[in-house]
Amino acid sequence: MREVAIIGCGMIRFGELWKKSLRTMFVEAALKAIDDAGVDRIDALYVGCMTSGLFVEQEHLGALLADYLGLAPIPAIRLESACASGGVALRQGFLDIGSGNSEVVLVGGVEKMTDTDRVTDGLASAADQEYEVFHGVTFPGLYAMIARLHMEHYGTKREDLALVAVKNHKHGTMNPHAHFQREITVDQVLASSLVADPLRLLDCSPVSDGAACVVLSSLEWAKAHGKTPVKIIASAMATDTLALHQRKEITTLGSVVESGRKAYAMAGVGPDQIDFAEVHDCFTIAEIVVSEDLGFFKKGEGGKAVREGLTGLDGKIPINPSGGLKAKGHPVGATGVAQAVEAYLQLTGRAEKRQIKDARIGLIQNMGGSGASSVVHILEVV
Amino acid sequence: MREVAIIGCGMIRFGELWKKSLRTMFVEAALKAIDDAGVDRIDALYVGCMTSGLFVEQEHLGALLADYLGLAPIPAIRLESACASGGVALRQGFLDIGSGNSEVVLVGGVEKMTDTDRVTDGLASAADQEYEVFHGVTFPGLYAMIARLHMEHYGTKREDLALVAVKNHKHGTMNPHAHFQREITVDQVLASSLVADPLRLLDCSPVSDGAACVVLSSLEWAKAHGKTPVKIIASAMATDTLALHQRKEITTLGSVVESGRKAYAMAGVGPDQIDFAEVHDCFTIAEIVVSEDLGFFKKGEGGKAVREGLTGLDGKIPINPSGGLKAKGHPVGATGVAQAVEAYLQLTGRAEKRQIKDARIGLIQNMGGSGASSVVHILEVV
Repeated sequence: MREVAIIGCGMIRFGELWKKSLRTMFVEAALKAIDDAGVDRIDALYVGCMTSGLFVEQEHLGALLADYLGLAPIPAIRLESACASGGVALRQGFLDIGSGNSEVVLVGGVEKMTDTDRVTDGLASAADQEYEVFHGVTFPGLYAMIARLHMEHYGTKREDLALVAVKNHKHGTMNPHAHFQREITVDQVLASSLVADPLRLLDCSPVSDGAACVVLSSLEWAKAHGKTPVKIIASAMATDTLALHQRKEITTLGSVVESGRKAYAMAGVGPDQIDFAEVHDCFTIAEIVVSEDLGFFKKGEGGKAVREGLTGLDGKIPINPSGGLKAKGHPVGATGVAQAVEAYLQLTGRAEKRQIKDARIGLIQNMGGSGASSVVHILEVV
Repeated sequence: MREVAIIGCGMIRFGELWKKSLRTMFVEAALKAIDDAGVDRIDALYVGCMTSGLFVEQEHLGALLADYLGLAPIPAIRLESACASGGVALRQGFLDIGSGNSEVVLVGGVEKMTDTDRVTDGLASAADQEYEVFHGVTFPGLYAMIARLHMEHYGTKREDLALVAVKNHKHGTMNPHAHFQREITVDQVLASSLVADPLRLLDCSPVSDGAACVVLSSLEWAKAHGKTPVKIIASAMATDTLALHQRKEITTLGSVVESGRKAYAMAGVGPDQIDFAEVHDCFTIAEIVVSEDLGFFKKGEGGKAVREGLTGLDGKIPINPSGGLKAKGHPVGATGVAQAVEAYLQLTGRAEKRQIKDARIGLIQNMGGSGASSVVHILEVV
């Protein structure tokens, strides 16, 4: 397979964007990415979006967005893997260029979540409709079960969960594209409304609108055209059962372990060589579990690691320098691509106040549902 | 790019399948395809589905179906391009193997359309929500405008449209997987309920449940393992505006012309070398327009060609030997893959009563909406 690189990125500030529709958000992010890459050709468009059908009654986003960008008649496809839709869009763009079929590809993610009164129903479509949703459980409940068991098995403390949110909000204050740019305290998290015991409101990522894009090209093309490439040295995906009750164990996410394992093998690096990671902290417990399942910490020690500051900007392995889903916001289809935007900025030294010193290798992990799908990419400075 | 082949296929009989859910339909079709290919490995799953969110409130189909097939933790992704979702799934499977990333891939399409009272709303999400659907137009209305203008510009007759349905129903009687397996007459079409003038009920493809799958591998792997490969010699996709009013011309579909042009160039063959075609006859007028836009007939002569029998099983270019969307049924996400199933059966001499003599090269064309996206594959006997 040919070598593939990210050569530009663009995103809009996530938030409750009442004045922007799905298509206007996407076009804004895409034009920024195209400008940033400085390209005058796009051979194909891959768009990650989870559930525009349920949220805004609009499918067929590939063609729609290619047209609104003035890019028709290029091939344009929408990809979906619940909240990992952005990650799979990045993966398909990677394979398209890797195969030699395309030279320059636009990968985007978008979700318009505030124009509906059915957000919880829409998100629940990522869980097993027949065996989970029908019985009334939604995602806060599913992740609460994971949190409760993690606390019982490993002694993870309620405060450890809160510290994930506190850290990510702190990082968010340094990210001009973050939905929330204010610090919060452990006391505020512990005093916020109970959503699904033990998870409280400030343990949950918000409902956001947003769009994010990156431009990919073959490494060869990037070099020949004087671009600033960051090489994608691994792209891996793995799946698991949708329904939590079908798994042998729920304090570890099999798809995360497997996608991480495959990505490390493909890149030829281990967790110790990763300089920072953007991971899928849809709930605070998710960041703790994922940080263990990707091998940054031993199983059960993710909570302790947060407590000891190992995942802060100057820690052993900075996690979610962007603010993560918790503070940057979580427009679901956009999230996986926004992680790639953050990694590109970090690896090209453009992350301003939140810049991680000497960052050369970054890992991004995006997942769907309660970990039924997980996509890991590893990126390296050329 | 590596050479890629289809090595097995399977589908269920399309219809109003009250006793089968989305997942059971898909598993049944997938197991048939895996059995047919005789493989004991699947490296990745690509599923085409248009709008399972709106129809059955279930997204995240890649992981769900991989799990129900016992294939987790393989990578599994759902692709969407409205009614061309099956075609884009095939294309992504092709690129995955072509890149060298995977060796054996399962490509499937599925749609469960009869478990909702919102089929028309759901399908309308393939049109432009803000500029078409909001104003009340649905797909029969959009294609009716195309039909009316085609009749005015080119003298296409109302009876020509009817003859497309009559031909495809005749073909359907020879296909054990077709939703409708009975012949109809021109008089019956002309006497059926008016849906959107000039289109009547029997000009419209039905609302069907169904699933279809093919197994792909690299040609090299297929040969080394004694499979029966049919080579994919072209995969091309093109897009256009979602909204009909934004196009300069509506009696020709730009995405079909462009995807056909690119496919012929990639395969190194022209329309005269195609032995049969499966095209997207969501409405009778669509088959006529597409047969012109793919170069089988001059612009405006598609109606005459049907009248003269050129598109029948023993005509110059047999079109929709399977019965097409009109008679075989149109579970939207499954349609593009079902076309590949038909092509594989025809090119391996297994199409029974509807077998086209000496078929060596087949073309399949799948489109979304009123032609905002079109995917063309060309297949050849090895």
